[in-house]
Amino acid sequence: MNFLSVRPSDSDLISSDLYELLESISTKRKMEKHTYLFREGMDAEELYLIQSGLIEIGKLTSDGKDLTLRICQKHDIVGELTLFTEEPRYMLSAKVLEDGEVLVINKNKLEKELIQNGALTFEFMKWMSTHLRKIQSKIRDLLLHGKKGALYSTLIRLSNSYGVERSDGILINIVLTNQDLAKFCAAARESVNRMLGDLRKKGVISIDESGKIILHKRDYLRCEIECENCPLEICNID
Amino acid sequence: MNFLSVRPSDSDLISSDLYELLESISTKRKMEKHTYLFREGMDAEELYLIQSGLIEIGKLTSDGKDLTLRICQKHDIVGELTLFTEEPRYMLSAKVLEDGEVLVINKNKLEKELIQNGALTFEFMKWMSTHLRKIQSKIRDLLLHGKKGALYSTLIRLSNSYGVERSDGILINIVLTNQDLAKFCAAARESVNRMLGDLRKKGVISIDESGKIILHKRDYLRCEIECENCPLEICNID
Repeated sequence: MNFLSVRPSDSDLISSDLYELLESISTKRKMEKHTYLFREGMDAEELYLIQSGLIEIGKLTSDGKDLTLRICQKHDIVGELTLFTEEPRYMLSAKVLEDGEVLVINKNKLEKELIQNGALTFEFMKWMSTHLRKIQSKIRDLLLHGKKGALYSTLIRLSNSYGVERSDGILINIVLTNQDLAKFCAAARESVNRMLGDLRKKGVISIDESGKIILHKRDYLRCEIECENCPLEICNID
Repeated sequence: MNFLSVRPSDSDLISSDLYELLESISTKRKMEKHTYLFREGMDAEELYLIQSGLIEIGKLTSDGKDLTLRICQKHDIVGELTLFTEEPRYMLSAKVLEDGEVLVINKNKLEKELIQNGALTFEFMKWMSTHLRKIQSKIRDLLLHGKKGALYSTLIRLSNSYGVERSDGILINIVLTNQDLAKFCAAARESVNRMLGDLRKKGVISIDESGKIILHKRDYLRCEIECENCPLEICNID
């Protein structure tokens, strides 16, 4: 099984020069499922380049509301929001979904390296600019068509990040419960259950025996939310 | 009347060096109310530093859904999402709300300048990183507490950007209709009417004769949406 589209992960968006710089100034660290790489509010000294495993980036409010923003995989960068900020604290939390390994990059060290090398900073800016446009496009997706728009855009982004093309459609190749999907949309699980049930009746999706979703009619979802056919580097979930 | 907090506008977040660089490579252009500085989908060759006037940054879908993301004022930068991108197109539209003048900065020219000067790029990165965190914080505000959270956070952000402190509270010193407020929240005007009516009954807000909103109990709004007391450079609307 090959991935539908080798989604341009963050590292593909970064030049090999920048990737090598990140590698040269980093140390390796193992990470275990169910632990946190970092938590919201912690002092932020590091950012991370994922070598293996899966990380969920999200936010948890004191009254238990849980919002998932990204599921990150190999070659994705996390902890980036604290770069170039004074008294940096993590705005979001990074929960390990699957054991793996990360390259740990000291924030100050990276900033110093970047300031000496305009070309490398330029590469990093390109990556940040794409990241900015990705987050901007999410506001549109998550707001403009209500909870239906939030769910449908999440399914499309998941298929771009974790999709495996099959004869009958696209398998989203990670197991996500309806509660996991609800966390992407700040919606109630019950309403996600209903919407998914409706999509199943329409033959737009089906669920395989392992609980993974198969998109049979992705264009139906796109049409419903007036998808703007953003490039893959924008329309993804990691 | 002095502004409540001279909200750190984008230019204050940029060093004088960077501001001078932007000025040195720009040309002046007048802009008239009701016209567009740029529209979504247009080729993006320029970004703009506002010298005077007001600009509304937003998105309009083909079925007429209207989402406002920023109201920008003096010293704010707009058109920034296209920097460092290939085949740049504006993701959003920039509508002139009040006559004024902008500095027009050619995108390629700026990118070339920045690549030669690591320190200036560094300053620009700081600005971009703050912008990234601001947009990220909006996703939380606009989603986590439903339409009430979207409206209350918009009122708080407006007061940080356009607030004038008075003995009885904070005057949001621009005229916004309920429809304008609804566009920030992707909500129906009727539901914004109801929520504002409720706030008026509770004495949290009042409306002056010119239609401007006065916040009498801003902390009530903060408490309702579990405000995280983000710094002013994050919690604003421009």
